Amino acid sequence: MRDVYVIGVGMTRFGELWESSLRDLFVEAALAALDDAGNAGEHLSSMYVGCMSSGLFVGQEHIGPQLADYLGRIPIPATRVETACASGGAAVLHACLEVAAGVSEVVLAGGVEKMTDGADVTSALATAADQEYEAYHGVTFPGLYALMARAHMHRYGTTREQLARVAVKNHKHGALNPKAQYPFEITVEQVLNSSRVADPLRLLDCSPVTDGAAAVILASEEAARRAGSHPLIRVAASAQATGTIALHSRADITRLDAVEQAAKEAYRQAGITPDKVDVSEVHDCFTIAELCVMEALGYTEAGKSGPLAEAGETNIGGRMPINPSGGLKAKGHPVGASGAAQIVELVHQLRGEADGRQVENARIGLAQSMGGTGASCTVHILEGVS
Amino acid sequence: MRDVYVIGVGMTRFGELWESSLRDLFVEAALAALDDAGNAGEHLSSMYVGCMSSGLFVGQEHIGPQLADYLGRIPIPATRVETACASGGAAVLHACLEVAAGVSEVVLAGGVEKMTDGADVTSALATAADQEYEAYHGVTFPGLYALMARAHMHRYGTTREQLARVAVKNHKHGALNPKAQYPFEITVEQVLNSSRVADPLRLLDCSPVTDGAAAVILASEEAARRAGSHPLIRVAASAQATGTIALHSRADITRLDAVEQAAKEAYRQAGITPDKVDVSEVHDCFTIAELCVMEALGYTEAGKSGPLAEAGETNIGGRMPINPSGGLKAKGHPVGASGAAQIVELVHQLRGEADGRQVENARIGLAQSMGGTGASCTVHILEGVS
Repeated sequence: MRDVYVIGVGMTRFGELWESSLRDLFVEAALAALDDAGNAGEHLSSMYVGCMSSGLFVGQEHIGPQLADYLGRIPIPATRVETACASGGAAVLHACLEVAAGVSEVVLAGGVEKMTDGADVTSALATAADQEYEAYHGVTFPGLYALMARAHMHRYGTTREQLARVAVKNHKHGALNPKAQYPFEITVEQVLNSSRVADPLRLLDCSPVTDGAAAVILASEEAARRAGSHPLIRVAASAQATGTIALHSRADITRLDAVEQAAKEAYRQAGITPDKVDVSEVHDCFTIAELCVMEALGYTEAGKSGPLAEAGETNIGGRMPINPSGGLKAKGHPVGASGAAQIVELVHQLRGEADGRQVENARIGLAQSMGGTGASCTVHILEGVS
Repeated sequence: MRDVYVIGVGMTRFGELWESSLRDLFVEAALAALDDAGNAGEHLSSMYVGCMSSGLFVGQEHIGPQLADYLGRIPIPATRVETACASGGAAVLHACLEVAAGVSEVVLAGGVEKMTDGADVTSALATAADQEYEAYHGVTFPGLYALMARAHMHRYGTTREQLARVAVKNHKHGALNPKAQYPFEITVEQVLNSSRVADPLRLLDCSPVTDGAAAVILASEEAARRAGSHPLIRVAASAQATGTIALHSRADITRLDAVEQAAKEAYRQAGITPDKVDVSEVHDCFTIAELCVMEALGYTEAGKSGPLAEAGETNIGGRMPINPSGGLKAKGHPVGASGAAQIVELVHQLRGEADGRQVENARIGLAQSMGGTGASCTVHILEGVS
């Protein structure tokens, strides 16, 4: 197993992009990433596409070869990978594996989702929960995360205001990101007064429905050094784990076991402890998710995430900046693309090219992506090495 | 990169299995494969699930962790891979990569599809074609393969009877397979008189709609030798390629470029020529597909497959036995499972445990799986080494 480097990143603007089809979006992001990687794209020999549900959203499965075709890259192998909202993270993980194994020098990993074309989005997303034991009985994701939030509040005294702080912080960051779907700030009052979705979660606790794509070029050290112009970013860890798909099967619904497992493995691979991470992109599909993830990543003890968020520790400039991109909440959440977009943001941060949202002296970045209520999780750790 | 071995195989009966859910089917096949692998299953550290469209067929995405959960194997990583009807082949390919890379000692690769639960199957399958340029305009798969058949007949003089021979032969083989959906023989006359689906293809030229699952356990040489009781089966090649998703983009619609590319790479990896293959399982979703695939695999020149089928050369006992399992036509075609089920059959053949349908002295087997009209293709070559 050899080292793997990120040598190119690209993404579309996130939003309601009615003028673009799924293939348009992916190709735009992939071409941007290839362009960013300089001439290394000539050696591209394989593709992974993360996408949760192109079948339900736009009536198109089999997007691996379709996107390779429209990118002008057939006959290279192209596989779609799906782990619900962690699909983009899984695409990056499997691409890393292929480079690490020595099978390929340069591999493209991207994610895409086209959600605003008219499908019943809530029902489509609910297929990431247990259809027979959850969705069929009427529990969709806002309801499932609301259960987690209520349990966290009950057990640890987490407050409604602390949840709101997560959204306020991510919008503050997102306002600095030109690719964000909602690049504007919001207040705690606005969150608390927004319409109720599934008590205690309100509209501004929820990430939006989004179209978008993101892509990453992974390469061997030799190919990375040949590509040249950017600071080298090494993939120090690439880990994945699973948990029970149904919330009712868990011993403690405030804990994300798959995130804990993937994080533990990632820290082992990278040889670091959580306090060494300078900047994180995590899966804040709902405000409560960001809090539970902070605990599962070992950034704080169980139950202590709310006060940290309230104290501003997770802001850019805080002790542990989280979601400088604006996160899923403000940047947007095209589900299959989000995991790949996290890597795009980390690379900008570690290269020092994140403009107004730059985390100072960022050298180690962590990306955590999850599917469903955390049944799938990928964790990547990137390290700037030059 | 190290050698990879198949140490366990299992599959459900294929058919209209209304009493079983998707998770039931997958778990049944996976447990059978783990049982077949002896105690090696203790070291299982990762899973790949091939599935084309659980979202459209049964309203369930995110089946990787769901199936890991129901198999009692969380927190191991589990990824669904999708390349339409080649998804099972792709699952095997990515599992092989993980073992070859040295990341895992024992990996499960399976495929599953539950197609008879009430979805609009023809529309769901059409999402493997180009939705915007083919399916939307009314061309579904029988129509697309009919275009290929008509072109092959026009260019090479392939006859209606030669197409029928493929179905007759596969049913003859399938009658010997207790897991087959249609374990009975048919005649050329029955094929020619069956109802017209898309001229020149008739009902008995088409593979059926099927529920089923298949699973394969891949392992390193050390793990394979520890597992013990079976003859060793080495994965001599594992290759994948893509072609244009839309038929109209191809220079010649009688040729399967992705199959040619994947086969070329597979022969290179295995260090063999096509004539060294003793037994093949190929993707006969329609009778014309088996003929085009024979040519793309280099088993014969372009245009010569029809006469070979007519002469019985592809029967068990013939010079190049194809689809001893009954193929997709008679064994059934649960789309995401078919590529994995091909490996199951080859392993039985190479172990010499295929009973009435045993190909004598089979030492090298080839499995070819494809998605859509061949936009995705995987080719595996297995070799009995002890």
